[in-house]
Amino acid sequence: MQDRKPGHQTRKPLKPDPGGKRNIRLTLAYDGTAYHGWQIQDDAPTLQGLLSDSIARITGERVSVTGSGRTDAGTHARGLVANFFTSSRIEPGRLMRALNGVLPRDVRVMSARRAAPDFHARKSAVSKIYQYRIYTGPVLPPHLLREYFHYPFPVDVEKMTQAARLFPGEHDFASFAKANTAAVNTVRRIFRCDLQKKGRRLLLTVEGNGFLHHMVRNMAGTLLEVGRGTIGPGDFRDLFRKRDRTLAGFTAPARGLVLLKVKY
Amino acid sequence: MQDRKPGHQTRKPLKPDPGGKRNIRLTLAYDGTAYHGWQIQDDAPTLQGLLSDSIARITGERVSVTGSGRTDAGTHARGLVANFFTSSRIEPGRLMRALNGVLPRDVRVMSARRAAPDFHARKSAVSKIYQYRIYTGPVLPPHLLREYFHYPFPVDVEKMTQAARLFPGEHDFASFAKANTAAVNTVRRIFRCDLQKKGRRLLLTVEGNGFLHHMVRNMAGTLLEVGRGTIGPGDFRDLFRKRDRTLAGFTAPARGLVLLKVKY
Repeated sequence: MQDRKPGHQTRKPLKPDPGGKRNIRLTLAYDGTAYHGWQIQDDAPTLQGLLSDSIARITGERVSVTGSGRTDAGTHARGLVANFFTSSRIEPGRLMRALNGVLPRDVRVMSARRAAPDFHARKSAVSKIYQYRIYTGPVLPPHLLREYFHYPFPVDVEKMTQAARLFPGEHDFASFAKANTAAVNTVRRIFRCDLQKKGRRLLLTVEGNGFLHHMVRNMAGTLLEVGRGTIGPGDFRDLFRKRDRTLAGFTAPARGLVLLKVKY
Repeated sequence: MQDRKPGHQTRKPLKPDPGGKRNIRLTLAYDGTAYHGWQIQDDAPTLQGLLSDSIARITGERVSVTGSGRTDAGTHARGLVANFFTSSRIEPGRLMRALNGVLPRDVRVMSARRAAPDFHARKSAVSKIYQYRIYTGPVLPPHLLREYFHYPFPVDVEKMTQAARLFPGEHDFASFAKANTAAVNTVRRIFRCDLQKKGRRLLLTVEGNGFLHHMVRNMAGTLLEVGRGTIGPGDFRDLFRKRDRTLAGFTAPARGLVLLKVKY
């Protein structure tokens, strides 16, 4: 019925289907604790693998599911977007309920709908909003165990807030990329970067047009080192220019990272 | 050093100790998913059993731990209070850290301090605050899985709010007690009962001087039936007078219940 957009790529290319396939868009929420991230792997449970298997169980069709981006092992999502092409004519609302019937309860399809044939979960995305969550109190309450990084040290939140204000804009984030990153272009645009203090919790919310591998976790770790005083304000400002991963802060652990939303 | 208050009782009576024992007060937070409630059992993991074993590991002394109240299997706590008498002279802050070193991460000692010799976690309590949490949206997001009851049906929140307003005061809660409850006196005083709507979440917060077995869960289930229209406002008002468990609503599941705080 509909041709796919020229240049559309998935990790395992779909066979051309002259009969036309529907493009289905899903919004997913998951607790990533038990998963090795988004991208399918042969020998470890991943979100992409789980979703692909679940779709096959419902539709009888093996499809390639495109996500809005790869996510690290142990990170979470409230609104990751994915799409896939299917010959199935099952109505999206029914598909959602059927998928939620076979998926484990730590992964949910929050919504499903038909998308335009040229919709691509990753390439069509305009921005993504991540939140990194830190608990600074001496003892981590168990209800925060899964989605908070426990950092029980005194930090200067005002210094962190001032540093966080330097992130918005277009910068070279090479200093915040994963060590030995394969990315050629390390320039990204950050639209918003807020640090909120709620009691003993620190919530770092970042919206950008794209993120390098480990970028938000490195931003969080670097801000914490600014808060501890181990990275001074001047050194922090130099990070964009120096393009040196070793000068930024540590990589904050995956469990504190939540993908809140993808905008199109 | 200190005599225990006359009439003090624990489930396993402590031997009198002429040398004097210290009374230690703990505040506990836990995710109750993996536990069969507070009270010690021979063949199932409970909070009281776990805590007693952990104290024995640290102090070498087997003590009887008194909780602010029994809690149902699968319910949670942010601030359950417990106390025990010990010959150990370990400083409470160190004891807290040592206990958190041996307890599983879904159970935390949030604070520990010496209490007056007559402090009794249950008998000294003036009030307890519970919260029952309901999610009414069609799909339960995984981050709410452990502490929310999923009730994906339309409810009239205004009717529920009006009914909730009838709980404060001193009433006979026999209709809200667990079926075949052993309690002789079913009169309790409720100081506060608020229903808050936050998007698709409903939070029922109840403070009272004491609670019958299943009482908050039965209050929540009954309010939901009021919201669904299966219990009318007049029938709801009659519940206090009729003292009949079969006339109230269903028992909402344990996972939605959190003990927030105990006041002394």
